[in-house]
Amino acid sequence: MMKLNLDYTVYKGHPSGRIVKSTGRRDVLASDEVLLKITHAGLCGTDEHYKSADMVLGHEGVGIVEKVGAEVNTFKVGDRAGWGYLHNCCMHCDQCLSGNEILCPQRAMYGEADLDQGAFASHAVWKADFLFHIPESIPSAAAAPLMCAGSTVFNPLHTYVRSADRVGVVGVGGLGHLAIQFASKMGCEVVVFSGSEGKKEEAMKLGATEFYATRGASKLHIGRHVNHLLITTSSLPDWNLLLPVLEPGGVIYPITVSEKDLDFPAMPILGGSLRIQGNLPCSRGLHVKMLRFAALHGIQPVIEEFPMSVEGIEEALARLEQGKIRYRAVMVT
Amino acid sequence: MMKLNLDYTVYKGHPSGRIVKSTGRRDVLASDEVLLKITHAGLCGTDEHYKSADMVLGHEGVGIVEKVGAEVNTFKVGDRAGWGYLHNCCMHCDQCLSGNEILCPQRAMYGEADLDQGAFASHAVWKADFLFHIPESIPSAAAAPLMCAGSTVFNPLHTYVRSADRVGVVGVGGLGHLAIQFASKMGCEVVVFSGSEGKKEEAMKLGATEFYATRGASKLHIGRHVNHLLITTSSLPDWNLLLPVLEPGGVIYPITVSEKDLDFPAMPILGGSLRIQGNLPCSRGLHVKMLRFAALHGIQPVIEEFPMSVEGIEEALARLEQGKIRYRAVMVT
Repeated sequence: MMKLNLDYTVYKGHPSGRIVKSTGRRDVLASDEVLLKITHAGLCGTDEHYKSADMVLGHEGVGIVEKVGAEVNTFKVGDRAGWGYLHNCCMHCDQCLSGNEILCPQRAMYGEADLDQGAFASHAVWKADFLFHIPESIPSAAAAPLMCAGSTVFNPLHTYVRSADRVGVVGVGGLGHLAIQFASKMGCEVVVFSGSEGKKEEAMKLGATEFYATRGASKLHIGRHVNHLLITTSSLPDWNLLLPVLEPGGVIYPITVSEKDLDFPAMPILGGSLRIQGNLPCSRGLHVKMLRFAALHGIQPVIEEFPMSVEGIEEALARLEQGKIRYRAVMVT
Repeated sequence: MMKLNLDYTVYKGHPSGRIVKSTGRRDVLASDEVLLKITHAGLCGTDEHYKSADMVLGHEGVGIVEKVGAEVNTFKVGDRAGWGYLHNCCMHCDQCLSGNEILCPQRAMYGEADLDQGAFASHAVWKADFLFHIPESIPSAAAAPLMCAGSTVFNPLHTYVRSADRVGVVGVGGLGHLAIQFASKMGCEVVVFSGSEGKKEEAMKLGATEFYATRGASKLHIGRHVNHLLITTSSLPDWNLLLPVLEPGGVIYPITVSEKDLDFPAMPILGGSLRIQGNLPCSRGLHVKMLRFAALHGIQPVIEEFPMSVEGIEEALARLEQGKIRYRAVMVT
């Protein structure tokens, strides 16, 4: 244990829905921990779900290492480091031993881990084993949204999609605009579905091969069916409109966190042998691969920067709720 | 074309819900077709769905070849042959060319193919390419339910399950009692969930390693979680009771044909990275493997026989609706 005696600034949710500035306290740094000065933090739809909770918000953090615990040899002072949804796991269950620690029954995730710490803060202390080095070519502001949004779309694309497949992406937002880039660089045909034509040009620039506006449509005429369909919109879509675009045996990934039930018409699912695949961000090994892949191909989020302050966070949240962010908000200290 | 001039007996559904005896007519036999004298036909839950339709019922047929078309060299007069859900496909789409003809967009299935023919009849004419030889060790009465029920549970077990997995089977009926046998012979631990303890002894004899009664339970204490969960009950179960028995990353197979929506709570599906896998009977190559596997391991349905007649079919249907069949009804001519 190293003495720390650190008071740090945090931004928490509150039942009123307002953001509250507060102070956290850390007396010591454990031998396997790292102290970070936070520089950037992405704003995720999940933060919106937690904005009434008494906890520090933010789980797309990037910062600079200020101190390392006695046994940490993977980070040194001055390194850039990032973190996402996962903060701890048991290291000895079937899942952890297979490199699937995101599925560890004893995992600690954002919203379950230390509620007095988060990415909307001046500092954070995390276990070194749950931090990631940022590739040199990726600026810290761009790295932040990769920690959750990037990780969450990369996981199903890497795990289930083959390069010769046709990939549908529903929604062009924080998740969708990264999914388009990853799928495109994997070599896939990328078929984008968005409410209006408003984001068509940008979607095509990001790597889409086709673009369809869905609002008011009763049937989608897309030519060859898609093998995969990533649902990245903040609410679930009209399945009767979208299921017919899937090839038999195709897979639906409801990626957005939804408090509503997943309610599918049964016959198209059974008759088409469709699959609905629940999904989480990457486990750590794959998270590292995601960052390398993003660096290799120049995949970066399109961001809007806001100051890391009560006003900055509240403005970003308001714009997120209004659907106005193009395409991910990043708080900057 | 071979002249046939055949009048044959059929049993059809009717809007009244009664079974109607009628006569079908076939003038000719095409060069790729086979004429069968039907000896046995299983009764499937799907027949119940069609019992108000003006079509010949039955799609678990077994019979003896009476005539073969000029170009048929895979069957000869006197052979036993069976058929199931699939009656035709295009032979040239991506799916057919990959051996997935059950997913062919132009496939003809029971309820879509020739409505004047079915397994509840004295005779049938089908394309030779959609008939299956019955292994010598399997009696015709036992072979009939393998054509749909057996094929439908074998497909997901063969395709997705590994022998070291734990397999949950919900429901011990026509589908479930075959799923238990197949999974057991594949080497899996088989965890059975049934309403009451009534079928426990039989389920254990069929190969179950564990058995849990679910009626009235608010939580299931099953020890190690299951990797797969086959839903074989005639109505969908309480997901809040059953989802917690799944290992993270586990797969749910809603095998029963349901007209109701598949309505899942979203958070357990996403947080557990669970998968919902739509499902159909086997394509032909796998159907043949299923029959060989059943023959090798002595897997046979437990059946109740009824006469192939209006009264026999109506009695079997009534007992099926009352949940009294142990475990598959077979009509015998």
